[in-house]
Amino acid sequence: MKNILLKIAYDGTGFSGWQRQPGSRTVCGEIERVLSSLTGEDIKLDGTSRTDAGVHALGQCASFRSDMKIPVENLAKAMNDAFAKDRLEGIGEIRILEAREMPEDFHARYSSKGKRYIYRISCGKDPDVFCRNYCYQIKKDLDADAMREAAGYIVGEHDFACFQSAGSPKESTVRTVYSLSVEKDGGNVLISVSGNGFLYNMVRIITGTLVEVGLGKRTPESVKDAIDSCDRQKAGHTAPPQGLYLDEVFFD
Amino acid sequence: MKNILLKIAYDGTGFSGWQRQPGSRTVCGEIERVLSSLTGEDIKLDGTSRTDAGVHALGQCASFRSDMKIPVENLAKAMNDAFAKDRLEGIGEIRILEAREMPEDFHARYSSKGKRYIYRISCGKDPDVFCRNYCYQIKKDLDADAMREAAGYIVGEHDFACFQSAGSPKESTVRTVYSLSVEKDGGNVLISVSGNGFLYNMVRIITGTLVEVGLGKRTPESVKDAIDSCDRQKAGHTAPPQGLYLDEVFFD
Repeated sequence: MKNILLKIAYDGTGFSGWQRQPGSRTVCGEIERVLSSLTGEDIKLDGTSRTDAGVHALGQCASFRSDMKIPVENLAKAMNDAFAKDRLEGIGEIRILEAREMPEDFHARYSSKGKRYIYRISCGKDPDVFCRNYCYQIKKDLDADAMREAAGYIVGEHDFACFQSAGSPKESTVRTVYSLSVEKDGGNVLISVSGNGFLYNMVRIITGTLVEVGLGKRTPESVKDAIDSCDRQKAGHTAPPQGLYLDEVFFD
Repeated sequence: MKNILLKIAYDGTGFSGWQRQPGSRTVCGEIERVLSSLTGEDIKLDGTSRTDAGVHALGQCASFRSDMKIPVENLAKAMNDAFAKDRLEGIGEIRILEAREMPEDFHARYSSKGKRYIYRISCGKDPDVFCRNYCYQIKKDLDADAMREAAGYIVGEHDFACFQSAGSPKESTVRTVYSLSVEKDGGNVLISVSGNGFLYNMVRIITGTLVEVGLGKRTPESVKDAIDSCDRQKAGHTAPPQGLYLDEVFFD
């Protein structure tokens, strides 16, 4: 039996998130449907990150086991053709960037050593109808220097309970953020964060908190206090899903 | 009775085009619905360009008559709030950029002296899932110099019957193209065309023809032959709708 890793990009706009749910159109559900149809097997896919509704991916990973006859090197094209069926220019909402056979013990979720997300923010007085599903549009300018100062308090190993949505399952809330950059490009701000793991909504809450710092609504130091408090109420708002992209998954 | 001009941007992806059609979600239909609800009148809107399904606008114009009580200067905000209802960040698929009272004899369609469209093409081996509704993705590089040479034959007053979709209503097919530019920005190509009027699918057929020139499938001179022939079969394919944007409408 082959153990196959897929590297996947998707536009999350039209999906109820990654994870399969009966009666909902999800990314995982669509990929399983296409794989099951191509292989004639009942394929179950394990994704690295369960992205929420409206969240995008540039490099999601997922693995599955199969006795399929299709050569692995032909799989991405066969899947992309299926996703693009009935679509203009043959480009679907989901694109398989790579399919590769892996050792028997590989698992897209448990073998992952970390992930990088990016978050896109667009600043400007006039909202752009074409960006509404692809970034967080803020009508005011952001102070990127203050955001970077705040980001400095987040990098490292910390108990990030304050950056976890209320009602999340209980577990250890200690994680390591390897890097957290804030880049400004014209009126736009790009946040890039990598770490060994992320709590539920953690990147969106970090972003919302940094945005409040960038707007001058809170000080950079208040972010340190929020982390120390382990209290969700002390952190900022949860930024909307459409600015978030799963950028890369790290393996050994 | 007031005669009001709206300047409108929209993402055409989710609409069956501009023109109202019973049972279909159209841009004109949505705007009329919102205007009728805000004014309590049965508003009928006249748009300058009847854009097709999937075609976008950066500067569509439309006019309507009303006895509305809402001050004109408050209308754009009231409409945008209505379009954005239940949407993230308050940005809908339609955005009113400006609302202005015009003289009694003004009409968005009949008073127009011309229009400019732009057409976005993205060239690259790897299709981009995020651009699939916003440009024409071609996997090969385009020769912009050859496209510009071909464009030179199109500028001016000509019988453009070859650039009109078959089955279009009979009428004069003579139009004046004021300018037609082809700009390259990295792997992308931007076509910008302005003229006093355009036949049905004219910009998309011009684009398809220029793309064939850019791919080396036909010579720049063949475009002159196509115009002279007045034969749709001698021109190139109709480029897909999602790369087309109504950019600006000209009035005196």
